[in-house]
Amino acid sequence: MADNASSKPRLLTGDRPTGPLHLGHLVGSLEARVESQDTHECFIIVADLHTLTTRPQKQFLDDLPRNVRDVVLDLVSAGIDPAKATIYLQSGVPAVYDLSVFLSMLIPKRRLEQIKSLKAMAVAAQLTEDAMTLGLLAYPVLQAADILMARATLVPVGQDIEEHIDVARELAMVFNDLYGEVFPLPQAKLSRTPILPGVNVGVGGTGTKMSKSLGNAIYLKDSKVDVADKLRTIDPDEKHADGQSPLLAYARAFCAPEAAADLARDFDAGKVTGSALHDAVLQSIEARLEPIRQRRSELDSETGLVEEILVDGTIRARTVANRTLQDVRTAMGFESMWSAFVDATSERAKARKRPY
Amino acid sequence: MADNASSKPRLLTGDRPTGPLHLGHLVGSLEARVESQDTHECFIIVADLHTLTTRPQKQFLDDLPRNVRDVVLDLVSAGIDPAKATIYLQSGVPAVYDLSVFLSMLIPKRRLEQIKSLKAMAVAAQLTEDAMTLGLLAYPVLQAADILMARATLVPVGQDIEEHIDVARELAMVFNDLYGEVFPLPQAKLSRTPILPGVNVGVGGTGTKMSKSLGNAIYLKDSKVDVADKLRTIDPDEKHADGQSPLLAYARAFCAPEAAADLARDFDAGKVTGSALHDAVLQSIEARLEPIRQRRSELDSETGLVEEILVDGTIRARTVANRTLQDVRTAMGFESMWSAFVDATSERAKARKRPY
Repeated sequence: MADNASSKPRLLTGDRPTGPLHLGHLVGSLEARVESQDTHECFIIVADLHTLTTRPQKQFLDDLPRNVRDVVLDLVSAGIDPAKATIYLQSGVPAVYDLSVFLSMLIPKRRLEQIKSLKAMAVAAQLTEDAMTLGLLAYPVLQAADILMARATLVPVGQDIEEHIDVARELAMVFNDLYGEVFPLPQAKLSRTPILPGVNVGVGGTGTKMSKSLGNAIYLKDSKVDVADKLRTIDPDEKHADGQSPLLAYARAFCAPEAAADLARDFDAGKVTGSALHDAVLQSIEARLEPIRQRRSELDSETGLVEEILVDGTIRARTVANRTLQDVRTAMGFESMWSAFVDATSERAKARKRPY
Repeated sequence: MADNASSKPRLLTGDRPTGPLHLGHLVGSLEARVESQDTHECFIIVADLHTLTTRPQKQFLDDLPRNVRDVVLDLVSAGIDPAKATIYLQSGVPAVYDLSVFLSMLIPKRRLEQIKSLKAMAVAAQLTEDAMTLGLLAYPVLQAADILMARATLVPVGQDIEEHIDVARELAMVFNDLYGEVFPLPQAKLSRTPILPGVNVGVGGTGTKMSKSLGNAIYLKDSKVDVADKLRTIDPDEKHADGQSPLLAYARAFCAPEAAADLARDFDAGKVTGSALHDAVLQSIEARLEPIRQRRSELDSETGLVEEILVDGTIRARTVANRTLQDVRTAMGFESMWSAFVDATSERAKARKRPY
């Protein structure tokens, strides 16, 4: 790509800013993102427009400034380096709206209706089928605009939204086919990390994956005491229908593989008490959380730093997006049409000035 | 409205630039627009983005520059005064894309699926239900963005798309309700003029309304000979199932009311021959077309004039649209969020510079 100064492949990833990031994000995506920084040019989207697809109400929008700041703070605290990665605010990149409108003309409505995750999102947001908005149906198209504006080729996602990346790839192919080669084809990169269950509080409890909206999350910004209290809500003897223990899922996510296996075996054999298992898991979690918490506190206290990171990243993303939009409009013919009209207007203005 | 310097109410109207304007446009909307110029502040959209909803293929986009120029030329030739009305190119107003994305979050998909005219558009474009795009479903939302960006209160339309204006009004109400009063509520103004049938050529013939895509149109730019030839394809004795004569429909549209009634009576009584009826109707049409044709030729020969009219209008529309978008983003909270981030960033930059 002409605008890709780096020779590294582009990767796009990110989060809807519905609240601070939690342990599920840390093991599910954050640590992988930190690793990707050296091998890929990373675009990390703070996807505030996407929150409108299920939560357009003002009370949710009023929470955005704090949530956006929290997410950026969490990202950098967890090791994302703003000098390497571009962390940006989706609503601050105007070209994405244009691209989204253009792409909407290239995909059958039926194709989007087949996507199961959209129905799941509606259910999770307690929307009836009748209340599902056009914006929610168009959600994968807006995501495609995010991905394609950055000309990203790799998009790490959970299996549940893998199909959204299929949509982005299909749109890239249809566009290239109709108007000429503009977009590289993006591929999903499935997360290998098993899903972390929640703690035993909130609506979700241990029976669902950790999620802010389900109220069963341990946040990166939680104090050591809060983390310990939340972890202790999980009964060490609890087992899901599939025989898996939620607490041991944490052991596998946070302890070294051998240590996790030892803990599981010793707990089953009665050599380790439930309390000792809690302590061991807590220690491994804290080994990861403590440095993040430390960095978070330092970054947070430096006035304007988090904001500067986001504003700089958004301006960088804008430049990239504008360049892509220019290429899109050129391929479709809108750019040459407008330029020709402006040129003819200028010629006329010049001709008018000749007598002076 | 703060941005409405004129005290006249705003009116939005326009056309998809799929070809030059014809007699159906002249009597159906153009003459009413010319009258509206003195009572309303008119925004006249050349809706090139709307053509993408059914014709995104490159061969259609390649025709846009010529079609857009033709439409502007026809508008001004028919009496639209660029000093009074704002003629603008839809794709050249970036804020409309943003607004369209925001509005898509506020309308149930089901609401749009109920709109009959969208299915009719799909059928007319020979699209199967499976091929109907997201963009076509979202067509009334993009129209709402056009109308609401201009804060238009009046939208002249044919009965077939009256429901689109209902959608725009519903979106204005939902937006105002959620985020505070930003939009005046637009109303449809139904055309009182009966629909003009086509001439007896093309796919449509006299049995459907005059339409470029049906190949049965007399264009404003047609020569006098062409107009006469096309008009003579209509059999004076032809009557539709409802007893109406297509040729007499032209008499009613173009002759004075009394003269039209006389012609109908005398033709029925055998006092006027078919050939004389053709001649009388042709004379009335030419009385309207000849001055238009004359102006069209003058305007067309002045290099850059048509382009200048469109570019000036588009820049005016941009200014209005940007102001509306600013109000929308402010009401939703996006503007204050971004401003706060930028302000914090600036403060930090200032603090860094203090030592110098």
